[in-house]
Amino acid sequence: MSRSEFEIINELFSPLTLGDPRALGLKDDAAVLALPPDRELVVTADALVAGVHFRPEDPPDLIARKALRVNLSDLAAMGARPEGFFLCAAFPYSTCDSWLETFASGLRQDVETFQIPVLGGDTVATPGPLTLSLTALGSVEKGKALRRSFAQAGDDIYVSGSLGDGALGLKVISEEVSLSITNHREFLKDRYLLPQPRVALGLALVDVPGMGACMDISDGLVQDIGHICRASGVGAVVEMSQIPLSDATRSLLKASPELMDSVLTGGDDYELLFSARSRARPALAALVSALGLPITRIGRIETGAGVVVLDGIGEVRAFPKGGYNHCLGTN
Amino acid sequence: MSRSEFEIINELFSPLTLGDPRALGLKDDAAVLALPPDRELVVTADALVAGVHFRPEDPPDLIARKALRVNLSDLAAMGARPEGFFLCAAFPYSTCDSWLETFASGLRQDVETFQIPVLGGDTVATPGPLTLSLTALGSVEKGKALRRSFAQAGDDIYVSGSLGDGALGLKVISEEVSLSITNHREFLKDRYLLPQPRVALGLALVDVPGMGACMDISDGLVQDIGHICRASGVGAVVEMSQIPLSDATRSLLKASPELMDSVLTGGDDYELLFSARSRARPALAALVSALGLPITRIGRIETGAGVVVLDGIGEVRAFPKGGYNHCLGTN
Repeated sequence: MSRSEFEIINELFSPLTLGDPRALGLKDDAAVLALPPDRELVVTADALVAGVHFRPEDPPDLIARKALRVNLSDLAAMGARPEGFFLCAAFPYSTCDSWLETFASGLRQDVETFQIPVLGGDTVATPGPLTLSLTALGSVEKGKALRRSFAQAGDDIYVSGSLGDGALGLKVISEEVSLSITNHREFLKDRYLLPQPRVALGLALVDVPGMGACMDISDGLVQDIGHICRASGVGAVVEMSQIPLSDATRSLLKASPELMDSVLTGGDDYELLFSARSRARPALAALVSALGLPITRIGRIETGAGVVVLDGIGEVRAFPKGGYNHCLGTN
Repeated sequence: MSRSEFEIINELFSPLTLGDPRALGLKDDAAVLALPPDRELVVTADALVAGVHFRPEDPPDLIARKALRVNLSDLAAMGARPEGFFLCAAFPYSTCDSWLETFASGLRQDVETFQIPVLGGDTVATPGPLTLSLTALGSVEKGKALRRSFAQAGDDIYVSGSLGDGALGLKVISEEVSLSITNHREFLKDRYLLPQPRVALGLALVDVPGMGACMDISDGLVQDIGHICRASGVGAVVEMSQIPLSDATRSLLKASPELMDSVLTGGDDYELLFSARSRARPALAALVSALGLPITRIGRIETGAGVVVLDGIGEVRAFPKGGYNHCLGTN
């Protein structure tokens, strides 16, 4: 790195505060934040390591944006409004200036899109792989944070968007599967490299009457419904035929039906998974129009424990132990 | 690692929440924190990489405790009360169970000592060196946070404790210098491996009438006074003869006077550096007795810019460009 670490902070990261006075210009020992008395803070932290959570050769702007978006997705899962984030970045000694500039410009793009300023952090050099740790802060009205433990027997289970695209996008990028249609290929790659955190949906769900549990899908649908079931002390039944799929994923599944396991357990969706009493249906239907985002009912919460997936003819589907284990924090 | 990452969190890190309900049992997407309406949040983040910020062969309990203490020192510098922290840890694939257990037990010791629970984080595996990123949260009465920019011409400059021990401790550990007296050797090693964050002092300084700027010394005395001068738009004169030294450092300097450069610019002190109007002197004297911690006046803030160090006979001391550059975040 030809820039000193002071220069990296001053030239590349200071603009990412968006002039937020709470960052104290990244020039003090810490940031100082006040919250209105009717709100509380939501804090999430995620670590990403090159070669484990993303490929070192991925475009640096997309690496930065994905790292931020994964954290935004956690805030969305709690129904929180983004307030700011702290970035601890360990850059390999070999990191060149242009790489850093592209990284910072990608981050800037999302900082502006989601209006989530950098409030602080740390920049260090490492002999190892690029390692990014983000701590994102959001806020919710007091007592209104969405939680994994709020599911009740009888709830409908919903997911936003379409599932499986991220996991299949990774397979496309790593050439494990091939897709002849360029649009489909690019769509899936993009879904892997640049997840869409459902911030607006999370904010809206907070006010849905009859809202139940909520989380974002990062480990895989089946594993993550399992998290909700354990947290809420309930079981779940999922109708596989109801799982929302993109055209690209549908065309891949047509050729290779066994890829359905990746849809169910592959992870990297960053869609919201939530439950709600049946009285929430009208409010949720209104949200679909208001946000222009599909929300699909895929099953129901039941008494008991564990997750059952029913295939198209109502048989219980068996599949390999669900979910991947690379990333097992409180995310 | 024979434990899964779920087991690491459940068995080793969950107890570190001290049962704090804000951590949501490390089982949700984020932690949720409310603050009383008269307080605001102070947030700091630091990254530490094995081989850069600590030696991989250092005792794991001390690695954990130092990582936490470095962040506690930043909270102390802002006059903040510790509220909790988030740990993103990238553990090398080769990390064994007993190493992890010792790491967690060290962390637990300091979590209890400083009453700062783990509120969340992320645990991942890395092909690279151990990388720890901590984000620590504290709180202060609204508008009361100590800042680097609050120095005024005419202020006295103070430091807590004794300086140079950490930098010389590292030289002792890495056998760059030798010390025949066992007690001195162990004292300096300990000062390097286990800094003492001045949390109680920071909390007390908030209420000192005539208090000026404050920060903790991590880069080195001269470089850090430079930070205060730049943030406050002032200059500083330091009397080298007034810098408080431990017996161990004094005995090293007797044999090798050139080590004074390490005292002035070596860093790793984690003492508080602050300025105050002269009317603060009685309150500060009272603090010395109340806390049992030396506070020493080492110079004064002046109009202008830059830091001048006067040696024992009042001559301006020249020394190599101050401060080390490994760790240049907002810490």
